[in-house]
Amino acid sequence: MVSIASAASTTYDTYPDRTSRELFAEAAADAFAATALDPPAVDAVYAGNFMGDLLEDQGHMGPLFADHVGCREAASVRVESACASGGAAVREAVHAIEAGAADVALAGGVEVMSIADIEHVTDALANAADEVYENEQGVTFPGIYALMARRYLHEFDATREDLAAVSVKNHANAVDNPLAQFRRELTVEEVLASKPIATPLVLYDACPISDGASVVLLVDDEFAAERGLDPSASVLGTGQSSDAVALQDRASITRTPAAERAAREAYTDAGITPDDVDVLEVHDCFTVAEVLALEALGFYDRGEGVRGAVEGETAVDGSLPVNPSGGLLGKGHPVGATGVGQIVELTKQLDGDHPNQVSGAEVALAHNVGGSGASTTVTILGGA
Amino acid sequence: MVSIASAASTTYDTYPDRTSRELFAEAAADAFAATALDPPAVDAVYAGNFMGDLLEDQGHMGPLFADHVGCREAASVRVESACASGGAAVREAVHAIEAGAADVALAGGVEVMSIADIEHVTDALANAADEVYENEQGVTFPGIYALMARRYLHEFDATREDLAAVSVKNHANAVDNPLAQFRRELTVEEVLASKPIATPLVLYDACPISDGASVVLLVDDEFAAERGLDPSASVLGTGQSSDAVALQDRASITRTPAAERAAREAYTDAGITPDDVDVLEVHDCFTVAEVLALEALGFYDRGEGVRGAVEGETAVDGSLPVNPSGGLLGKGHPVGATGVGQIVELTKQLDGDHPNQVSGAEVALAHNVGGSGASTTVTILGGA
Repeated sequence: MVSIASAASTTYDTYPDRTSRELFAEAAADAFAATALDPPAVDAVYAGNFMGDLLEDQGHMGPLFADHVGCREAASVRVESACASGGAAVREAVHAIEAGAADVALAGGVEVMSIADIEHVTDALANAADEVYENEQGVTFPGIYALMARRYLHEFDATREDLAAVSVKNHANAVDNPLAQFRRELTVEEVLASKPIATPLVLYDACPISDGASVVLLVDDEFAAERGLDPSASVLGTGQSSDAVALQDRASITRTPAAERAAREAYTDAGITPDDVDVLEVHDCFTVAEVLALEALGFYDRGEGVRGAVEGETAVDGSLPVNPSGGLLGKGHPVGATGVGQIVELTKQLDGDHPNQVSGAEVALAHNVGGSGASTTVTILGGA
Repeated sequence: MVSIASAASTTYDTYPDRTSRELFAEAAADAFAATALDPPAVDAVYAGNFMGDLLEDQGHMGPLFADHVGCREAASVRVESACASGGAAVREAVHAIEAGAADVALAGGVEVMSIADIEHVTDALANAADEVYENEQGVTFPGIYALMARRYLHEFDATREDLAAVSVKNHANAVDNPLAQFRRELTVEEVLASKPIATPLVLYDACPISDGASVVLLVDDEFAAERGLDPSASVLGTGQSSDAVALQDRASITRTPAAERAAREAYTDAGITPDDVDVLEVHDCFTVAEVLALEALGFYDRGEGVRGAVEGETAVDGSLPVNPSGGLLGKGHPVGATGVGQIVELTKQLDGDHPNQVSGAEVALAHNVGGSGASTTVTILGGA
């Protein structure tokens, strides 16, 4: 079994004068400070990052980050799966430990986005879509998710107000999270009155441009016991699956089958059912994405996911708390960091130490998506 | 244990009108054709690629390639460690099988470089160096390896002619390899008379700009036995380590300690010593790199690696055959593909089916380097 020895994150914000290596090292230093492990104990470094080549002229981040956090001799690699890079980095680190190739693995993610102007960032993000069949045809991610949202509103009994409720909930949660980028409540009216970005989506349906880094230190359980470590959480199971990158190649654009498959695999791996999950962090890059996530993960039937936020079920004190961190919408979305940041948040929940603590949280699930659903990781955590 | 069910590669060449997805799918189709496995049997796809974001405006290649090879539902991820991306992809795939997360994993690599002009490609390759302390100071990879070569010639009893002998050997080997980009012999005089690129290195000290893809299908041994598969080779051990990215941060620029550590780990994992190795594919991006590799891997003392090519020891019929494929110098270097292509070549050697067959090859070693040595993977293969 693999446990989380410690987990840390920078505040998500805009840091246009900082580099990925600095933010990654800051998060790692905080993670080391919270455990008895020193950097040389790390056997492997997994670095999730999506756009460093395009926005910082920097690739080869595995050894660069390993060196900057004090693990120069560790095996190191960058893991990229667009906005699921962080979740994928954690899963590869878990595999390395389970394979016996590492006793201690540092899995982190980072993105510096505010360094570039919005057009450049939107263009870079579009590399997560199919260059031939999507980008070259002029569609970028707000447009892709707008197609999904429009179809959802067409197929199901859901309204623009219902989607806005997701943004309202997650922004409210972010108010109390010191790691969040936006700590201001919004009303449904304010969401709907915000600038259109790709009809039917408006500005507050979308996550912001963010910078930040998150890191988890994963340890083999036997090693942790030998060293007298006191882990904060354990990895109960993981799952990962793929789908066609381009929307046009999918049977439905209101389903995310990669998430369905990743969830099934993770539930089986963990030996649990959705009923056992106490708290979730899901990939709400746009409001509609949270709704699709809750359906794919098995918590709502198709077309019913909008009920979660509207009826308060997914509030921190609801029956199924979703994104108590504020999610991508409120906490921010430094792309490569996001999947790791979700696990940082959930580790705090399982430790009983979250600013929006879910009462009695014993099993937690993270759902991290690349592109419009072409790659998805699901990670299920339990208490230490 | 993990075995190689099959291995295939496109010819390395320039294909300016083709995309990475096409080349990757071509190599994968050939790999599937050589085994009883069908694409839906693949649980995980690992895609090595370095410059797709910069040269093809395409990231998120894990699911894109998985879909294009017929494995739409597999877990998929891109693995990047600059020019060691291919070797790293194979190692992650091995971990996934060893961790029990996959019975069958497809590890491949691809690069399309000739799509861009040489200045743009050189600039993209420079992302493998330290942007802050190397690139921004004006140094690109020919300059970085020139510094290493110049220092090597200064420290040790070696000449420009000695380095040229590596290029002569590898180009001679490439003549018989149908997968090679350059199938023309060179003399030491021709090498030395070629255009200076960064003194003391000249054009034929350097590998070319190449396009191509290579794929290996890795299987769990028990699964292979149940399915009645007939693997071509087995993975005896792997190792991976890192070093400072920038040359200035290293104690010596004529040593590659990441390779030394990766080799030690791989030898231990495989339970062998260097004496057991019958044939090698090493990362000769520049002539001096092959020399440094042979020293780091434990075959020559420091300053003695140049003897290999000069004295014929590393020839196909020598005592230590190195790069019978033609290496990066003669076969070509489609960056993300290279580490996988080395394993394709060695699988043929172990199968007794290589155009430059090493007599009695039973143990083979692949050495794949990112940047100027900041990341290195070592993979040791044996017979099936």
